[in-house]
Amino acid sequence: MGAKYFGARVERREDEPLLRGKGQFTDDIVLSDALVAVIVRSPWAHARIDSVDVSEAAGMPGVHSIWTMADLPDCLRGRQTPIQVPNAAIRQPHNFPVLADGEATFVGEPVAVVLADSRELGEDAAQMVFVDGVPLPVAADVGTAAEPGAPLMHSSLKDNIAADLVLQFGEDENPFEAAEVVIEETFRQHRGCCQAMECRAVQAQYDALTDQLTVWSAAQAPHMVKNIIVEMLGHDDGKVRVIAPDVGGGFGPKGMVYPEEVLCAALARETGRPVKWTEDRREHFLSTTQERDQIWTMRVAADRDGRLIAVEGDLVHDSGCAAPWGIILPYIAATTVPGPYVIPNYRMRMRSVFTNKPPTTPLRGAGRPQAVFAMERMMDRLADRLGLDPAEVRRRNMIRPDQMPYRMGLIYRDGSPLTYDSGDYPECQRLALAKADWEGFKQRQSAALAEGRYIGIGVANYVEGTGLGPYEGSKARVAADGRIEIASGAAPQGQGQKTILAQIAADAFGVPMEDVDVRVADTGIVPIGIGTFASRVTVNAGSSTHNASKSLRAKVIKFAALRLEVPEADIEIDSRVVRARGTNRSVTLGELRQFANGMPGFTLPEGLEPGLETADWFSPRQATYCNGTHVAEVEVDADTGAVEIRRYVVAHDSGRLVNPMAVDGQIQGGVAHGIGNALFEHMHYDDEAQPVTTTLADYLLPMAPDVPDVEIVHMETPTPLNPLGVKGAGEGGTIPAAACIVAAVEDALRPFGARFSECPLSPQRIVEVICQSKKVA
Amino acid sequence: MGAKYFGARVERREDEPLLRGKGQFTDDIVLSDALVAVIVRSPWAHARIDSVDVSEAAGMPGVHSIWTMADLPDCLRGRQTPIQVPNAAIRQPHNFPVLADGEATFVGEPVAVVLADSRELGEDAAQMVFVDGVPLPVAADVGTAAEPGAPLMHSSLKDNIAADLVLQFGEDENPFEAAEVVIEETFRQHRGCCQAMECRAVQAQYDALTDQLTVWSAAQAPHMVKNIIVEMLGHDDGKVRVIAPDVGGGFGPKGMVYPEEVLCAALARETGRPVKWTEDRREHFLSTTQERDQIWTMRVAADRDGRLIAVEGDLVHDSGCAAPWGIILPYIAATTVPGPYVIPNYRMRMRSVFTNKPPTTPLRGAGRPQAVFAMERMMDRLADRLGLDPAEVRRRNMIRPDQMPYRMGLIYRDGSPLTYDSGDYPECQRLALAKADWEGFKQRQSAALAEGRYIGIGVANYVEGTGLGPYEGSKARVAADGRIEIASGAAPQGQGQKTILAQIAADAFGVPMEDVDVRVADTGIVPIGIGTFASRVTVNAGSSTHNASKSLRAKVIKFAALRLEVPEADIEIDSRVVRARGTNRSVTLGELRQFANGMPGFTLPEGLEPGLETADWFSPRQATYCNGTHVAEVEVDADTGAVEIRRYVVAHDSGRLVNPMAVDGQIQGGVAHGIGNALFEHMHYDDEAQPVTTTLADYLLPMAPDVPDVEIVHMETPTPLNPLGVKGAGEGGTIPAAACIVAAVEDALRPFGARFSECPLSPQRIVEVICQSKKVA
Repeated sequence: MGAKYFGARVERREDEPLLRGKGQFTDDIVLSDALVAVIVRSPWAHARIDSVDVSEAAGMPGVHSIWTMADLPDCLRGRQTPIQVPNAAIRQPHNFPVLADGEATFVGEPVAVVLADSRELGEDAAQMVFVDGVPLPVAADVGTAAEPGAPLMHSSLKDNIAADLVLQFGEDENPFEAAEVVIEETFRQHRGCCQAMECRAVQAQYDALTDQLTVWSAAQAPHMVKNIIVEMLGHDDGKVRVIAPDVGGGFGPKGMVYPEEVLCAALARETGRPVKWTEDRREHFLSTTQERDQIWTMRVAADRDGRLIAVEGDLVHDSGCAAPWGIILPYIAATTVPGPYVIPNYRMRMRSVFTNKPPTTPLRGAGRPQAVFAMERMMDRLADRLGLDPAEVRRRNMIRPDQMPYRMGLIYRDGSPLTYDSGDYPECQRLALAKADWEGFKQRQSAALAEGRYIGIGVANYVEGTGLGPYEGSKARVAADGRIEIASGAAPQGQGQKTILAQIAADAFGVPMEDVDVRVADTGIVPIGIGTFASRVTVNAGSSTHNASKSLRAKVIKFAALRLEVPEADIEIDSRVVRARGTNRSVTLGELRQFANGMPGFTLPEGLEPGLETADWFSPRQATYCNGTHVAEVEVDADTGAVEIRRYVVAHDSGRLVNPMAVDGQIQGGVAHGIGNALFEHMHYDDEAQPVTTTLADYLLPMAPDVPDVEIVHMETPTPLNPLGVKGAGEGGTIPAAACIVAAVEDALRPFGARFSECPLSPQRIVEVICQSKKVA
Repeated sequence: MGAKYFGARVERREDEPLLRGKGQFTDDIVLSDALVAVIVRSPWAHARIDSVDVSEAAGMPGVHSIWTMADLPDCLRGRQTPIQVPNAAIRQPHNFPVLADGEATFVGEPVAVVLADSRELGEDAAQMVFVDGVPLPVAADVGTAAEPGAPLMHSSLKDNIAADLVLQFGEDENPFEAAEVVIEETFRQHRGCCQAMECRAVQAQYDALTDQLTVWSAAQAPHMVKNIIVEMLGHDDGKVRVIAPDVGGGFGPKGMVYPEEVLCAALARETGRPVKWTEDRREHFLSTTQERDQIWTMRVAADRDGRLIAVEGDLVHDSGCAAPWGIILPYIAATTVPGPYVIPNYRMRMRSVFTNKPPTTPLRGAGRPQAVFAMERMMDRLADRLGLDPAEVRRRNMIRPDQMPYRMGLIYRDGSPLTYDSGDYPECQRLALAKADWEGFKQRQSAALAEGRYIGIGVANYVEGTGLGPYEGSKARVAADGRIEIASGAAPQGQGQKTILAQIAADAFGVPMEDVDVRVADTGIVPIGIGTFASRVTVNAGSSTHNASKSLRAKVIKFAALRLEVPEADIEIDSRVVRARGTNRSVTLGELRQFANGMPGFTLPEGLEPGLETADWFSPRQATYCNGTHVAEVEVDADTGAVEIRRYVVAHDSGRLVNPMAVDGQIQGGVAHGIGNALFEHMHYDDEAQPVTTTLADYLLPMAPDVPDVEIVHMETPTPLNPLGVKGAGEGGTIPAAACIVAAVEDALRPFGARFSECPLSPQRIVEVICQSKKVA
């Protein structure tokens, strides 16, 4: 039972149906007699809502009913949606209700729902729903909203501070005083969206006969959707099933449980008819969660050789109008800053601040790109100050492999001491530099400059806690036709998890991969689970699939030995047939399944549970830490501010790779995402928190010509924390990209003395900085 | 955590909805757009079917489609339904197809299905389906069908013998030769039906979106229905769900999986529309399985004191046209004969014989009433021959409690050595006799005779293997509202299992019974299971409910200790709240459930599985043996043959009683059933196996005036074989009743010298025997 599939570049079984247009997305599902929901949204960032007049709209053609907060069932009235990730450190655990309840807190907040026979008729009616609101002062920007006396995001708050805490370690009393080098700088990152190809979508169906509520949602965490529907609707949790069919990209915001999911479920139950809602692109800009508005004031102390003595900072995080994911984002950011470096003294104050904008929730990287940006920019500044090579300064500070496991001195978000389990950071950086010909760059740069071309190089490192618990469950069973079925709590949005879990199961059970079916993203098959985010699925669902498949094999062998009347050691599993070695006796797996299910009047041997089904709930002791080094080489057009990424190298260690091809895809996509963060994606709001970029003409995404062929070097340091030795790989492509690209742009523009302490960098901003720098010079 | 509910006369939670007409039976379920199935049945007991002409019917109003074997999907064509309980000893494992396939083998066999918009239109069309058949010779009676050269039940058979085997034990070479007393007699029992209040009913629904096939059926064993649908339709077993809603009586025949269930499922999948079929009373007579046509030739050897030396017999069992339950019936019968008696030498030949009648499958008692009738009649003959009191002869031969566990020398149907686990048979008989004033009867009899009235008394004993494995699963979980939900593989048909399992769970978990919900009879909640028959549910599902509830309690305590930060020993469960003793800390069970389901980014302690759900698959080592003694006192009108049961006493030991009121109900109902077996229920067929009694005017059931108030004495000898100490109680009321009542009738008619060696005894038959006896005298 060797590893026949583990580690192989197996083609993704997801691809063929998707490429042939056979995917089934939420909007593709046809439920007969469905009502279409259209949401009436707040036009104000902050307003008191006095009344909602539906009288005209209610009489329009095709309108079934219109629902405001006052019309909703009692269980939803006057109630906020529960916080998905509560934390005792949240001072003001504010979340929004499913429909605005007397007060709207962002542009796009749902105020009423029109149920109609078609989308078109529903939209016509929605325009005739009149919301009578009085604008209130707006907490528009995270920087000013944090200040005392700022306009309140919601009238129930005492200030806009959701949380305010300090993380620190180190014994030195005043490390900055004696330090030879001290550097300070403030960084700002701007809001961005996720912009998945598929916007959000929900359908809900209620069957009065069985009291069963079934919800299809383009979700990353169907179990969380189920939990919140159960909690809010008070519906028996055994009779709520949430399915995420094909999902056209998640990237984090689809891990949020939204009012629309609860509303569709509630209204399907109220009306007895299926209810369908599909987000359009403009709604996506308005109401899907976002990330990244943060202000970092950083201070670093080092010795003359560039060795770090202390890092401290003050992080102001924009939580938007609610805290659905608690303080996950600033907490992850604050614990990601140290990265691969030995830092003797560390102190980070973090404030999470409410503003009248959509909530921020994890978006690929989840606070880490910002943290890495702040830290890696400081490393560049340090190199600059000391006249050292930026890679060399980094190398000097790196945790050595012989220091592993390395205990940082912080408590990670999973409550465990933040301890890096494994990795070789200096070697990873060495591989990236070698691949990128870092050594030869100075010469390339001089040659280019001689031609009047500005090229630059940047390097950035990161360490990422992945594979977080608490668990993910998998069930393995022999199906009636002898195939092996894996049912997993995983909920893919394009990562290829059906392929990866099939590889793992086929190896662990010992059959060809073709004999393994994988079902995912359905609370009807695995009733409890966590969800797909935080680069956690291969670690958790992969390990539980491995364990469940191995137990299933053991169970099959036991029943087969009983049935074929031979010792267990003589049993061989050969695709869908089980044989007794050295005899002509055999039984198909399908027949063995019937045998194991039991017949009336026969007795099971003691200690053997009936049925060929096993379950495993893999629960890691702590996060496992992947790491990587990115190197970007760019050329900047100093006249237009256009940035061309000439080369992009990623050296990456996410432990053992189940399917290197799938990991390559994750890294390439992640880098594309990072390029967006670095150069394109900026969700603008005006001073009244009115969104300004609400189309893909205004909000720029990187396009194919903007994304280079990413050169990938895989390192594989197995983690001891799970049976597969795997770490997460979904976000590493994104995390250091902005830091790396901005460093490279700065390096290219060194002749102008340009400095960048924000991102994304638009061409306009680059030209602006060049002009300012020229002026200063 | 004492036994607050176990053993209490708790009112059945099933009763209120049923008494208020709120029950939901299969026929009550409304599936929109459903087609109604009407079955065209064979009018011949045996015929070659040359063609089925549907042309005229197909064009009739409201007809959707008409299906013969040729129209069915490939998976059903040319295929018999699988045998539910296979056994290697079956020589000819014949079963019928879902629709007659060129040959019909009993009157009522399904030949075609009309799907129509209503029952009425479907029945009109069914009358216009013309079946072109050629009658074939009929295997009409079990006695003659067993003989060489008899007409074959089906043309594929070589003879009508399904199985022919011998069970025996004892070392004596020729025990009959030396015996002081040898008695021989042949007994015959006639066919009867089950006549549940609710006839059979099926509805099936197919959801193409999820490939889900849901079947509702008035079934005792939904898991068996699922297994056979999966096997025959080749449908993914993860996508077949069978639900038995309220079921209006099962009594055994609803443990059979019928062609109609497979047909409705197949046709729902084929047509894409729900399909509904409800059996009418006439169809019930024709096509629901029956029991009891058996011929027993018995021979008993004893010494002069009435001590048994040997019992031997030859049992010819009518299997009908198929062997869906294998040889369960004759096998159980042959192993039940020894009963509570020490029998040094035993030999029983059993033949299972095909006839052109509906199949026989277990019907309350499952072969045991016949076995007990044969053996107890022989005990009466022995007493008679020796001039001893019938009770005294029995007592002399009884296994003593100090002989327990008592190994009989046979292998029981579960494959284990037939070993009585516990019981005190002499004491049980003593209690029954005392209650019935057996001692005083002679005097009552003389007094009556003096008035010209014929009264008689009878006694009969039995031992029954109950609680057979292999297992039944139960799941216990904390629901969102903090209630405890038990999901069990049990499938009640009126036994009150929801009440009983709630009692068991409430005690084991330690909450008020009102906090326990019980869900049953749904393969969607417990995917594998066996079913409700053989007095096995309280033993198996009761024990697994007990175990799962105890594990759930342990899990709740672990999570609560973690959450409340106190030692496990300090945790108290108080209805829906969990408290830390000596503190003011508490958490509701609903909140604890969320905590145990896990939040993103937190870690479970090692060894603790997430979720407040547990499962248990209780699997008993062997059957547990209950026992009882019945005493009946009757008065016979020698002119009309009418029998009045003056008193009926049952002393019964089914181990510990969960709910004595429910057991009383089982015994009373069982005795009523036994009175039917003894005096009323006779399913007549003519010489061509045409059914003669196909209405409730022809086929007599005992009515209220025929059933006395049963006087019940409970003994409780706990079995060591399960954690509750319980044994089965569902059939003990029926098993010895016919033997007991016929003995009493015979005793009453002693002045005429009447002898009865058959049942049921009709008034006509009693008068006939009186006349014959008078003639002889």
